[in-house]
Amino acid sequence: MDIRLIVIGDELLSGRIADKNGQQLGKILHQKGLNLRNIEVVGDCEADLLEAFKGFENKITLVCGGLGPTKDDITKNVVAKFFNLHISISNEATEVVKKNYQRRDLSWIPEANLYHHIPTTITPLNNPTGLAPGLAHLQNDYAFICLPGVPIEFEAMMVQEVFPLLEEKYSLVTKKLGRINIRTFGVPEEAIFHKDTEIWKNLANFGKVASLPNALGVDIEVSNIDLDIYPQFEKEIKNVVDESPLKDHVWQYGDLSLEGMIINLAQKKNIMIGLAESCTGGLVSHRLTNIPGCSSNFLGAIISYTNEIKSDILKVKEKTINDHGAVSSETAKEMAKGAAIRLGADLTISLTGIAGPDGGTAKKPVGTLGIGYWYKGESGSEMIQLRGNRKNLKYLFSQKALFTLFFLLRDN
Amino acid sequence: MDIRLIVIGDELLSGRIADKNGQQLGKILHQKGLNLRNIEVVGDCEADLLEAFKGFENKITLVCGGLGPTKDDITKNVVAKFFNLHISISNEATEVVKKNYQRRDLSWIPEANLYHHIPTTITPLNNPTGLAPGLAHLQNDYAFICLPGVPIEFEAMMVQEVFPLLEEKYSLVTKKLGRINIRTFGVPEEAIFHKDTEIWKNLANFGKVASLPNALGVDIEVSNIDLDIYPQFEKEIKNVVDESPLKDHVWQYGDLSLEGMIINLAQKKNIMIGLAESCTGGLVSHRLTNIPGCSSNFLGAIISYTNEIKSDILKVKEKTINDHGAVSSETAKEMAKGAAIRLGADLTISLTGIAGPDGGTAKKPVGTLGIGYWYKGESGSEMIQLRGNRKNLKYLFSQKALFTLFFLLRDN
Repeated sequence: MDIRLIVIGDELLSGRIADKNGQQLGKILHQKGLNLRNIEVVGDCEADLLEAFKGFENKITLVCGGLGPTKDDITKNVVAKFFNLHISISNEATEVVKKNYQRRDLSWIPEANLYHHIPTTITPLNNPTGLAPGLAHLQNDYAFICLPGVPIEFEAMMVQEVFPLLEEKYSLVTKKLGRINIRTFGVPEEAIFHKDTEIWKNLANFGKVASLPNALGVDIEVSNIDLDIYPQFEKEIKNVVDESPLKDHVWQYGDLSLEGMIINLAQKKNIMIGLAESCTGGLVSHRLTNIPGCSSNFLGAIISYTNEIKSDILKVKEKTINDHGAVSSETAKEMAKGAAIRLGADLTISLTGIAGPDGGTAKKPVGTLGIGYWYKGESGSEMIQLRGNRKNLKYLFSQKALFTLFFLLRDN
Repeated sequence: MDIRLIVIGDELLSGRIADKNGQQLGKILHQKGLNLRNIEVVGDCEADLLEAFKGFENKITLVCGGLGPTKDDITKNVVAKFFNLHISISNEATEVVKKNYQRRDLSWIPEANLYHHIPTTITPLNNPTGLAPGLAHLQNDYAFICLPGVPIEFEAMMVQEVFPLLEEKYSLVTKKLGRINIRTFGVPEEAIFHKDTEIWKNLANFGKVASLPNALGVDIEVSNIDLDIYPQFEKEIKNVVDESPLKDHVWQYGDLSLEGMIINLAQKKNIMIGLAESCTGGLVSHRLTNIPGCSSNFLGAIISYTNEIKSDILKVKEKTINDHGAVSSETAKEMAKGAAIRLGADLTISLTGIAGPDGGTAKKPVGTLGIGYWYKGESGSEMIQLRGNRKNLKYLFSQKALFTLFFLLRDN
C-alpha cells in the first residue's frame, strides 16, 4: 500500500512556519525500506481537507495537525464527516487522555479540550510526549491515521504507536534496500558529470542514481540496492569512483554528518578542539555541539564580534588589525593561535568575514571570509569568497570551517 | 486564480532534506495579500509528476525542482509531455543562459547541461542567482511556471521574475489584508482558552482567529482584517486582550523576531550585550547574530564547554563548581558576571544545563537549565526544567535566554 502524508495548517501556507513532519516521516520510512509517496500541505479549511482526504482507498494516509484544543483544530470533525461517523465520548479515549496527562503530572480538565470525544469506530492512540491522543481508523483495505502536528509528538507517535500497528495489520514490505552515498566536496555538479560523462551510466548499473547539490559539495546517491548483493556492489561502486576524476573529491561514502565525523575523529586521535568565531557568531560551535557526547573533545569557543575582544581575549595584535583589517588572513591566523592558547586546545579554527548585508567594500565584498587554523603549533589561513544572503553566508562559512576542521583531523 | 506549489525531488520524500520553498513562497504571497492554496511534494517520477500537474486549469501552478543538469532532473521533459510540446533549441533561452553564466563570470558549455533546449512556446526566465533558466507557460486561463529547487534561486526568481510577470498578465487581487499577531509567553494554549472561554469568540469578531503554539509561548493571530478599518480594530483587539487574563502574558503585538526586538531595544537604550553559553553551545549567539546590524550592540560570547574555561576565562570560583556543580544557579550567576567583565558588556545572559542524551542525574535530569544574568552590576539566576531531545532542548534553552534578555531590556 502506498503511504502518503497530509499536513494541515494555515500557518504552513502563510509562511509562518515550515513543515518538519514530512522530512521526519520520510526518514523513518526510508530506514524501514519503505517509500513515502507524496506529501500534501493544506489549510485549516473543511473543503480543502475533504478534497485532500479523497483517494484514501488502498493507501495508508497519515494526517498531521489540527488535533489541538482550539477552534481552528478541525481535523477530528472533518474525519468524522468524511467517513460518516458520529463523535461521542469514548471510554477508551478517556483512558488514553488520562494516561497522557498523568505522564506529565498534569491534571486534565475534560471540557478544556474534549480530547475524549472521538469518532465512533476510531481507535485512540497514546501520545507519549504530548496530550492530544491520535486517531487510527484501520480497515482491511486502507488505513487513515491522524496525529498531532507538533514534530516531537508526531515522531514519537509514528515510531512507538503507529508503525507497530501498521506492521501488525498490513503486510508492509520492510525488506531494507541498501544505498551508498558518495559525498563530494569542492566541485560543482555540472563539472562532475561533464568531466566524466560515463560515471552516471556506470553507477546506474548498481541502482538508482541521484545527484544532490548541497553546501560546498554534491552528494551522489546510489539507492535501491538489494542487501544480498550490497557488499559486492559497494566495492564495485568504489572502484567506479576510483577510476573517475570524482575520486579526489570524495570525503565520505556514507550518511554521517560532518559534525559527527569530526567528533569521532577527534575522539579517536585524542584531539581537543576549540573555535574563534566572528562572522558566524557561534554557528560552528552550535553545529559541533549538536553531536551528543561532543564534550569529550570540544572545549569551547570565543565569539569575538568586536576588535577589542579579538585583541583582549584572542591576543590578535592591534597592528595586525590596523594594517590588514579585521577581515584578513593575518587576523584569522592570529585568532586561531590565540584561541588555541586561551582555550588550551590542540586544534582551532578561526573565522572572520563579512556576512552582510552591510560592511562590504570593493576589495572585501559581502561573502569574503578569512579562515585560519592552529594545529599543535602549525598554523595557516586563507581568504575565500562565497555568495548568498546573510543567513546563507553564515551557513556556508560554517560549512567551510567544518570541512577545514575535518580535513585537518583526517590528514594529520 | 488559486495558486499552488508542486515541489519535486526524491530527496524530499526520503527525508534527506526538508522543503524550504513552500514556506518562502507562503511568505512572499502573504505579504502581497495572496494565499497559497496548497503544496504538494512528489518524487522524481514521471507518472507522479503527470498526476500532480493535473487540475492546472484556472490556476497558477508553480513547480520547483528538477531543472538541473543531471539525469534525475526530468521536469522539463515531463512538462513538454504533459502539454504536448516539443523540446528544441531556443535562441531566447540561449541568451538567458549566457546572461546567467556571465553574471557569475563562468563560461557555459552548452552540452554539459542543455539549458537552452526548452519546450516550444515556453518562455525562459532569468535566474539572477543561479544558472538554470526558469520556464513560464502563461495562457489566458492558467499559468504553469517551473523554477529551480535551490531555495535562494527560487526566492530570487519568484520576487524578481515571476511575480512581475503574473501581476502584468492576470488580475491578481493584491489588496493587502491586515493581521494582528498577539504573541504570548509562558502560558499553554489550553490554559489561555480555558481560563477565558470568551476570548476566542471576542477576537473572532474582528477576523479569522488562529492559535499557534511555539517554543515557550503561543501566538494568537487575527487575520483577514480589512486595512481600511485596521487602525480601529487594532485598538479594539488590544482592548479585548487587556480585559482578559491573557494580558499579562503578551510580549508583542506584531511579527518581529525576538532576536530583532532585542537588538532594537539594545540600540535604543545603548546597551552592549554579551553571552556566556555552555549547554546551548553558541546557539543564542548564533540567533542574535542572524540580525543584520547586530554588531552595534552585540559584543560576543564565551562558549565554555568545560569547567576549566568557566574558571579560567569566566572566573567562576572552583569552589562554586565543586559545591554546587557546573549546572547550578550559583555557577550560572558567576558565569554571567564573569562574561560581563571579560567582554566589557552592560548586560549578559549565562546558560549552563543538561541537553542530553547523557549527563542527567536524578536530581538534575536532562532538561535542567541554570540561567543567570548580569545587568550593570545587578545579577540573578534561576533553575528551570524543560522537556525534549538534545536539539529541542538546545532550542528551548536558547529561547528562554532570549526571553530573559528581552524582558530585562524592556523592563529596565
